Amino acid sequence: MIDAKTPALLLDASRARLNVRRMAEKARRLGLRFRPHFKTHQSVGVGRMFREYGVEAITVSSVDMARYFAEDGWNDILIAFPVNVREVEDIRELAAGVRLGLLVESPEAVRRLAGTWPGSVDAWLKIDVGANRAGIEWDDLELAVAVAREVTALGPLRLRGLLTHNGQTYLARTPAELGAVHGESLKRLRAVREALAGRGFGGLEISVGDTPSAKRLEDFAGVDEIRPGNFVFNDVMQLELGTCGEDEIAVAVACPVVALHPRRAEAVIYGGGIHLSKESLVTRGGEEIFGRVCLPEGDGWSGALAATAVTSISQEHGIVRTTPDVLARLRIGDLLAVLPVHSCMTVNLWPEYLALDGVRIGTIRAWDCATPGV
Amino acid sequence: MIDAKTPALLLDASRARLNVRRMAEKARRLGLRFRPHFKTHQSVGVGRMFREYGVEAITVSSVDMARYFAEDGWNDILIAFPVNVREVEDIRELAAGVRLGLLVESPEAVRRLAGTWPGSVDAWLKIDVGANRAGIEWDDLELAVAVAREVTALGPLRLRGLLTHNGQTYLARTPAELGAVHGESLKRLRAVREALAGRGFGGLEISVGDTPSAKRLEDFAGVDEIRPGNFVFNDVMQLELGTCGEDEIAVAVACPVVALHPRRAEAVIYGGGIHLSKESLVTRGGEEIFGRVCLPEGDGWSGALAATAVTSISQEHGIVRTTPDVLARLRIGDLLAVLPVHSCMTVNLWPEYLALDGVRIGTIRAWDCATPGV
Repeated sequence: MIDAKTPALLLDASRARLNVRRMAEKARRLGLRFRPHFKTHQSVGVGRMFREYGVEAITVSSVDMARYFAEDGWNDILIAFPVNVREVEDIRELAAGVRLGLLVESPEAVRRLAGTWPGSVDAWLKIDVGANRAGIEWDDLELAVAVAREVTALGPLRLRGLLTHNGQTYLARTPAELGAVHGESLKRLRAVREALAGRGFGGLEISVGDTPSAKRLEDFAGVDEIRPGNFVFNDVMQLELGTCGEDEIAVAVACPVVALHPRRAEAVIYGGGIHLSKESLVTRGGEEIFGRVCLPEGDGWSGALAATAVTSISQEHGIVRTTPDVLARLRIGDLLAVLPVHSCMTVNLWPEYLALDGVRIGTIRAWDCATPGV
Repeated sequence: MIDAKTPALLLDASRARLNVRRMAEKARRLGLRFRPHFKTHQSVGVGRMFREYGVEAITVSSVDMARYFAEDGWNDILIAFPVNVREVEDIRELAAGVRLGLLVESPEAVRRLAGTWPGSVDAWLKIDVGANRAGIEWDDLELAVAVAREVTALGPLRLRGLLTHNGQTYLARTPAELGAVHGESLKRLRAVREALAGRGFGGLEISVGDTPSAKRLEDFAGVDEIRPGNFVFNDVMQLELGTCGEDEIAVAVACPVVALHPRRAEAVIYGGGIHLSKESLVTRGGEEIFGRVCLPEGDGWSGALAATAVTSISQEHGIVRTTPDVLARLRIGDLLAVLPVHSCMTVNLWPEYLALDGVRIGTIRAWDCATPGV
């Protein structure tokens, strides 16, 4: 039975392993390199589960995170964030020990990478296929060519390919919509690749990464590499999108009940924005929620309670709205297991996981503290 | 000049000191006990600034936070969160060294506090004056009496008073509205106090806590203690409410510029939900923003740039929407200083502050890691 005095980040390692295994098998079946994004779990302990299924290449979102995983033996690491030129010396140091991938999207940033590089460094052009976050806009061929030229001129960096994160798949509400968004994205990437080949930059790879596409779709024609991250844990957002089942959600936050309000069928839990994050979603029913609520059951947690959700959140408080029936069964001091809306943001708040067998598994946050000067 | 390779939490200690001094002076002038909420800064280093202005009693939001500040010599500590009965033994241990205040709101929770207590423990009845978060609803006199009876029957706890956090003041859009909300809240608290006196529970104190009221209002008739927290740093939310000026905002997040997008007058910064939190607000103009943007200037930062804000955020990326003029002056690798929407939630993400003189000041997060078994 789950036991915790204060809020704790629970990990169902069996579910996480199954999620990893399925994705690894799918990538193998489709002939894709599987380079999972480790920013979701941020833990060498969880990372080792991926090794069990043959994963050798990983994605991270910061130089620090690359260093953290490199120390645990990972040696093919892509930093999937536009290169931060303020960290060039740290990146150079890192490149001495691992095969490194960097994202570039402007000639200026590439020029700031000048100098000698100790190891093998791949440059990926970050392409914006329509999300309008970061990257070279897919129809701005002149910019893509200019960046490719800078990389080639620089020498030590190898122009490896085109990379995108298609965040727009999160807006798709049906499988057909998801397929259409994904198809359009691949079409654009292939067009950029072809145009660059026509301008003398041939043999570029394509790397894509988002959990909804990677989980639901089969058509990855022209793609060399996938980089999903969230699938290892999933969350209420994926559930709402229909890209996972409840039994694929591998993390939850244990929250003590501190007050019961029968008048309004609400419980107050010790579990707020500092435990769950402030990420919310609006359900298909039009309700803003901050998590789904389960009861401890066996060694883990039950299915999500019907007509029950975290409907409001402040720094430490969560308000669980439920039915009079459920409320009548709750007692002060009980634990609830809250499924997070966005597991990446929730996990980022914690120094460790509490696995269902009672083992504690550290995250980068614990490592950060142990690093002198940080 | 501000210098950081990666995102950093900047602290303007002079501004913070001035914010503390003003609030301490106001409390003294109004004859109120000043028990600031330390969950905003979560730092013994920042806490010591309060000592310089005569503060002796503090508010925290967890048992861990109480222990952290107790280790630094604070000995009059109120844990302003409904008592978590799973932590009774830890609370008992804490009570041996400090004068402790606890919040209770149900007979059940009070009964779980039975047993001997080593020191002086005050019980405060948490009253809900209309925010519908936690607490005994102000018009539920029977429940208030029942809880008061349990406390008295238990013996070792002393029934100290009534406490509320009037979160509704954050909804007030004008000083008149704020005054009306605050006035109604005090009226309700005084009514509960009077009713309890009539039932044999006399001499109860009243404790209130929210920054908008504490900063803007003068009428605290009947109040014994104020517990504002946010005022030490303020933030864009307070600015939007009109309860602080820009020169009273004492924290900002330094974020490197990693990409520029002239086509849409946007910059991409290394600064996302893991640095700022996902807290947003909708401005009077109807725009959802995640922070205001300043330039480094002198030893600190400039005023907020006009027509410029963080308008979208993901795990590590922030999108700054600005004017073509501002964008034309930015370079890859520049630092921007982002004023957070909600400083409490932002600070909670960091192990340390970087003060403008280059000194690093730790938070509870660094201490947490150093504590064995955590």
